[in-house]
Amino acid sequence: MAKLAIGVDLGGTKIATCLMDKGGRIVKKLSVPTQSKEGPDAVISRMRSSVYELMAKAGVTKNNVVAIGICSPGPLDTEKGVVISAPNLPGWSEVPLKDLFYREFQLPIAMENDANAATLGEYFYGSGRGMKNFMYITVSTGIGGGMVTDGKLFKGANGNAVEIGHTTINFKGPLCGCGNKGCWEAYASGTALARFAKEAIDKGRKTMIKDIEQDYNKIKAEHVFAAAKQGDHLARELLVQEAYFLGVGLANMVNSFNPDCIAIGGGLSHEWDLFYEPMMDVMREKALKANWENLKVVKAKLGSDAGVIGAAVTAWGLVLTEV
Amino acid sequence: MAKLAIGVDLGGTKIATCLMDKGGRIVKKLSVPTQSKEGPDAVISRMRSSVYELMAKAGVTKNNVVAIGICSPGPLDTEKGVVISAPNLPGWSEVPLKDLFYREFQLPIAMENDANAATLGEYFYGSGRGMKNFMYITVSTGIGGGMVTDGKLFKGANGNAVEIGHTTINFKGPLCGCGNKGCWEAYASGTALARFAKEAIDKGRKTMIKDIEQDYNKIKAEHVFAAAKQGDHLARELLVQEAYFLGVGLANMVNSFNPDCIAIGGGLSHEWDLFYEPMMDVMREKALKANWENLKVVKAKLGSDAGVIGAAVTAWGLVLTEV
Repeated sequence: MAKLAIGVDLGGTKIATCLMDKGGRIVKKLSVPTQSKEGPDAVISRMRSSVYELMAKAGVTKNNVVAIGICSPGPLDTEKGVVISAPNLPGWSEVPLKDLFYREFQLPIAMENDANAATLGEYFYGSGRGMKNFMYITVSTGIGGGMVTDGKLFKGANGNAVEIGHTTINFKGPLCGCGNKGCWEAYASGTALARFAKEAIDKGRKTMIKDIEQDYNKIKAEHVFAAAKQGDHLARELLVQEAYFLGVGLANMVNSFNPDCIAIGGGLSHEWDLFYEPMMDVMREKALKANWENLKVVKAKLGSDAGVIGAAVTAWGLVLTEV
Repeated sequence: MAKLAIGVDLGGTKIATCLMDKGGRIVKKLSVPTQSKEGPDAVISRMRSSVYELMAKAGVTKNNVVAIGICSPGPLDTEKGVVISAPNLPGWSEVPLKDLFYREFQLPIAMENDANAATLGEYFYGSGRGMKNFMYITVSTGIGGGMVTDGKLFKGANGNAVEIGHTTINFKGPLCGCGNKGCWEAYASGTALARFAKEAIDKGRKTMIKDIEQDYNKIKAEHVFAAAKQGDHLARELLVQEAYFLGVGLANMVNSFNPDCIAIGGGLSHEWDLFYEPMMDVMREKALKANWENLKVVKAKLGSDAGVIGAAVTAWGLVLTEV
């Protein structure tokens, strides 16, 4: 039987796993809820069980597996394989995930942060195939990203390069979860979009958003999109503003990284047609022409599978560089 | 006689040239005024003459020279060797500098933008030696920079990566020369510092700056520094603000590129002690701790020679990769 690598994507809401052959074909995929409130021990145990279940359902034993790649929210110490902290995973602090997995499976274990893994997934098997300078940006509850240049992840000194959600686009702006003011994420993430909607409601603006989601505390970006599609004025204004903020940050990426292709993934990318054109207009107005005139900005292809596919890619990468 | 490479640094005020041996030793250096107002033909002719003079003074013939590396303000098309435009060089538009030099000297010609060349100079022979993820930032009339990762320049799709002067730090900010609003350069360059000084004078603020430079139109960053050293209140306020703006942009660089060392060069770096500590405080407040806790931020070592040394490095690079 052909050798396979395992990818594990630890997310705030689900744990995804997959078996991938050397050619990038996904042999089997699995997804279970993270139930992150139960804390790291329970979640790690669920990750392990998921891997066993995946192998069992594919009729594969550990002998067929060359390596396991894990991706997780960060910051991580990818060398040591430790999750330093993870804002969306309660209790996760200095978790030595690589060691724990190695002890369980006695296989080479690779680790990468979720945005970098998704970047690799898209680069090898999605929207970034064949690109020399490929950038991936995910816009959902936060904003993250990664860059592949000359076939390699641009990782920086300790694997934390391209923390683009936390670049300032207005130093006088609102406080971000990271402690800085006016981060791109504080303006253009799904969370920020929902916050702007609530602020407008607080000011007494009439909007369908309140009918679509009657619990004020549960208002999310998706409700703004739903209202916009029904012609709601406030929701449409908010999307114009969202496209503007996306464009401002995108221009910074274009000037900083000069990619030949940027793929945008994450929850907001599902509403591509609602923001693509105005976002591009803003980016072209703000960035240097030499940096965007040959640039492609596309919707990411792999959706929520990008991370787990990228995790399996890092597992293969580990084995192939060790040969 | 040992083989030598020639570096040519075309700047807004001077043309610098040097002869460098394979070990990085500068055998001879020369500098002549650019006199850019005379237009491209005169300047190019002066560049050629400078190269001949340099060789003559070093007692070297073309047979001793392996290649010529030229650095110039950009944007450039480094592949074709064309200066697309250069705001500080009147009349420079689509100038095929590489072809013109090849026709004259029949030697391999390398081209690189000035910030990238200075980055290479500092990386190989200055403050960046031995660094794996080295970033160079120059703060003078504008702000530019470059990044070397794993021994190679991070160039992006067409050599225009790390155009960091034109990343937005406040999308509501003042208009920048590039057409965008609120670029880092529009807040933290020497030009911006002089502009803030003039704005304060316009508002009637008392300051020694007016005594140090009595011609309002000639007020420059250096006059603000001189006044600050004499205890001038306005000048000191402006330097606190300057350090803040430097810190905001620096934090963006730290989060975006995750370097292990950043060297700061350009005119403002001569006043290192006046801004280093407050700039670092702002950066640490704003950037992610994982990205700065092992970071070194140092003053660049090569001063105004960084560009011409880097240009000679690109010449050597051309020959060594062609071997």
